[in-house]
Amino acid sequence: MIKGIAASKGYAIGKVFLHEEVKIVISSETVDNVEKEKKALQSAIIKSKEQIEKIKEKTMKTMGHEKAEVFEAHLVLLGDPEFTGAMEMEIENNHSNAMKAVDDVMNTFVMIFEGMEDEYMRERAADIKDVSKRIIANIAGKSMSSFSIEEENTIVVAHDLTPSDTAQLDRSKVIAFLTNIGGRTSHSAIMARTLEIPAIVGLKDITCQVKNGDMLIVDGIEGTIIVNPDEKTIEEYKNKKQSFENEKEELKKLIDVKTKTLQGKRIEVSGNIGKPQDVHQVIANGGDGIGLFRTEFLYMDREDMPSEEEQYEAYKYVLEKMESKPVVIRTLDIGGDKKLSYLEMPEEMNPFLGYRAIRLCLDRPDIFKIQLRALLRASIYGNLKVMFPMISSLKEYQQAMEIVEECKKELKSEGYRYNEEIEWGIMVEIPAAAVNADELAKHVDFFSIGTNDLIQYTLAADRMSEKVSYLYDPMHPAVLRLIKMTIEGAHSQGKWCGMCGEMAGDESAIPTLVEYGLDEFSMSATSILSAKKIIINC
Amino acid sequence: MIKGIAASKGYAIGKVFLHEEVKIVISSETVDNVEKEKKALQSAIIKSKEQIEKIKEKTMKTMGHEKAEVFEAHLVLLGDPEFTGAMEMEIENNHSNAMKAVDDVMNTFVMIFEGMEDEYMRERAADIKDVSKRIIANIAGKSMSSFSIEEENTIVVAHDLTPSDTAQLDRSKVIAFLTNIGGRTSHSAIMARTLEIPAIVGLKDITCQVKNGDMLIVDGIEGTIIVNPDEKTIEEYKNKKQSFENEKEELKKLIDVKTKTLQGKRIEVSGNIGKPQDVHQVIANGGDGIGLFRTEFLYMDREDMPSEEEQYEAYKYVLEKMESKPVVIRTLDIGGDKKLSYLEMPEEMNPFLGYRAIRLCLDRPDIFKIQLRALLRASIYGNLKVMFPMISSLKEYQQAMEIVEECKKELKSEGYRYNEEIEWGIMVEIPAAAVNADELAKHVDFFSIGTNDLIQYTLAADRMSEKVSYLYDPMHPAVLRLIKMTIEGAHSQGKWCGMCGEMAGDESAIPTLVEYGLDEFSMSATSILSAKKIIINC
Repeated sequence: MIKGIAASKGYAIGKVFLHEEVKIVISSETVDNVEKEKKALQSAIIKSKEQIEKIKEKTMKTMGHEKAEVFEAHLVLLGDPEFTGAMEMEIENNHSNAMKAVDDVMNTFVMIFEGMEDEYMRERAADIKDVSKRIIANIAGKSMSSFSIEEENTIVVAHDLTPSDTAQLDRSKVIAFLTNIGGRTSHSAIMARTLEIPAIVGLKDITCQVKNGDMLIVDGIEGTIIVNPDEKTIEEYKNKKQSFENEKEELKKLIDVKTKTLQGKRIEVSGNIGKPQDVHQVIANGGDGIGLFRTEFLYMDREDMPSEEEQYEAYKYVLEKMESKPVVIRTLDIGGDKKLSYLEMPEEMNPFLGYRAIRLCLDRPDIFKIQLRALLRASIYGNLKVMFPMISSLKEYQQAMEIVEECKKELKSEGYRYNEEIEWGIMVEIPAAAVNADELAKHVDFFSIGTNDLIQYTLAADRMSEKVSYLYDPMHPAVLRLIKMTIEGAHSQGKWCGMCGEMAGDESAIPTLVEYGLDEFSMSATSILSAKKIIINC
Repeated sequence: MIKGIAASKGYAIGKVFLHEEVKIVISSETVDNVEKEKKALQSAIIKSKEQIEKIKEKTMKTMGHEKAEVFEAHLVLLGDPEFTGAMEMEIENNHSNAMKAVDDVMNTFVMIFEGMEDEYMRERAADIKDVSKRIIANIAGKSMSSFSIEEENTIVVAHDLTPSDTAQLDRSKVIAFLTNIGGRTSHSAIMARTLEIPAIVGLKDITCQVKNGDMLIVDGIEGTIIVNPDEKTIEEYKNKKQSFENEKEELKKLIDVKTKTLQGKRIEVSGNIGKPQDVHQVIANGGDGIGLFRTEFLYMDREDMPSEEEQYEAYKYVLEKMESKPVVIRTLDIGGDKKLSYLEMPEEMNPFLGYRAIRLCLDRPDIFKIQLRALLRASIYGNLKVMFPMISSLKEYQQAMEIVEECKKELKSEGYRYNEEIEWGIMVEIPAAAVNADELAKHVDFFSIGTNDLIQYTLAADRMSEKVSYLYDPMHPAVLRLIKMTIEGAHSQGKWCGMCGEMAGDESAIPTLVEYGLDEFSMSATSILSAKKIIINC
């Protein structure tokens, strides 16, 4: 029995396909001939582009447009002067050899992205690694490894899985992933959850412990693996698998159920999304609405600001798909650790305590107004609610609403329509907002508690910091008190209060939150049904 | 009339002494002959050491031991392999020329230290600049400028003043400082406050606007300068100076007054100190005790941990000098932004939310126990109270107290004595502690509110970040509520509550804090008397 980090639930019984990574040793020797090295880099980048184009086309044909998207992102990255330019600078300034230059730049970028809180941002780290390793392989004149899985019921075992690896995987044959490295938020873990197949990560040396063709049992709930099990064990796990799937079926019956507590209070269970397309998974899982639509994706992986038109289309898409169900859209929460290549940002020592979200938007109404105009224009297509992130005091909310009023006036004079009934709320994710909730509730239409940040600030502990993440505790009595104060503050003024942090989907926290009177829970689509089941028994 | 940042209160009328900095242009050309450049660096370092030794000896003779101390710190810096080694690495890895290498390393170190919250740490930035510029001057074969002030009533005007500049100044002749750069916390500002002479900093180009021998009026309260004033204006300012000095005299009458509010509640007004010697200034200003003795200084500017014996001597010194008055010593608050060269620390994205203070101490009982043993042993010499920084939950306090118990047992078996009556408290500087104050108060002996951090975390705003420092507001309603909750929490369990952040010395905040029932105010020694005056009128 081997134990790792359970990253995606479920059971699998199948045979090992060992995916071996190409190993390239990178020397740290400096070079004298800088020009030669820059040329080597340049031609490796061109070659990488050609390869990715080809894989993209092939993937498009065999697996469809969506799977091929990742390669489009890789092409954008290869064309990003901030990325490849940094490699050239590395050669020029430090006389690094080309491979070392790529490796150094990769490490810097990966460190930045892996430290980010947003799952979409962390995913970028995997893309950066993937592309960089391809460039290095091309400098070394080696080819990247590829997959050729023939058999069904295959369990892929790898050191790590890159986005281009997973895009090329044949879903009909692969039933589980196991990787040496990674955590619950690494690329392979996220992919496995999206594919709804079990995965265990952080297994350290699983690639050495099993060989091609070994029979494995993967327990994605406990995070354990059994190698070459006996018949009796296989039988046992077949049963477990069956009841897991039965339970999943059972949950599916809750899709159309309007959740009420035992005392009869109606509670909304909604989904968090990051891209317009994600809306379908929320609908498929019976979400009562969208409780958090992060809008950062619109601004990422590109060379300039998204236009009003582009944003309008994205918001309209989600509002229309959700029909008249509530859609809470959060205004831009960029800055701090989330940087945009086309937006100059100050270097800060503590980006989590810095220039980000509403702070940036109030400072840059030119950027903010484009989003607000797009939101207002889209509002006629559904039930829109807008919330501002990182509000610490009433003044910020009032300043934001002044800009909203300006936008309304502009739109009116330009002949655009918008919904006059939009609800305007705030994220409660800074301790000051929770402590002052009763006062803020007099002015805003609703609250949504962002527990991820609220917990970090309340305990002064960055949950991404390995050394202090143990302090991050959603059930800390002070955190619970602040949540209670926020809900009571909202209710004291007849307003509603939701929650869109990870805690809202945490099965052990839900009963307490119901008891406190939380009106809306918003979580990842895959958690909605289990949450509904818990709530109807509260 | 020229306006700058008022950095030290008071008035001065006198003549300009223009201190001109040696100007050296640093090229960014890279070099091929790395060895030659490293040798140039080495001999400049040796030469710098010789020069500093000489200045040190001279200063010792003319100005005494205390003024010469800064040069000892400079010698330690020149011997620190982390510092000079980084310069060599810069030459080796980047083929930088020697001057550029020193300049780059200087900038990195200065940026780190200037970003720190602790005044003592920020002071280190000035030392680093000072030493680095000396090395650069020696590489360039130029000599650093020096002072020769002959006349009394001299106003020193400079681009910036380095620690070695201010150490060489003749106190009997200099009556004010004016500098182009710097803020309220820069070296020259701190020095001026220590010397109790007016200073204005951040004047941009004062060195171009005045010339040697100009008559100036310096208004250190408004931050204004009048160049070559007429007789009437001089008369006016002579009067202002007189009434400022009268008021100072008036305040001195409060030195021995035991502060009570109008309603008769006794309130302690104590001093914050960073070094044992600072205790004298607190006594001279009539402090009722030491409300915060930061112990970081013991660990800084050295190559290894301070021994139990060294620490014991430092604590004993302060306790004895304060006689039976309370001395609150805070255990080590190192880590995060405050790093020690001999202690390996993780790189963190948000050091303010990271591995520091009690978190580090609980993780490293080997370090923590040395300090606790020293504190216990020193406790027999006075009225010691100990507090732990960055407490977020009861568990941390309990873990710390377990280690205290271990130390007590050890000391007993070794035959040492200690005071059984020591009070053990916590800093309330993390929102969680304030929110849970009533619960924590059941277990601890006292609270001391650390407003600097509490405000930063409550508002999620790093006050060192230029872009968001405007959010840092001690009078934010949420901050005031948390302070009130903390005081009421302490009182509900019959415990006392103090405050040692900057807010405690803020004249506009004191009446509110008195109203909330704060029992003890601790601040910089120079603010004690004005605070006493306000409190007796509350």
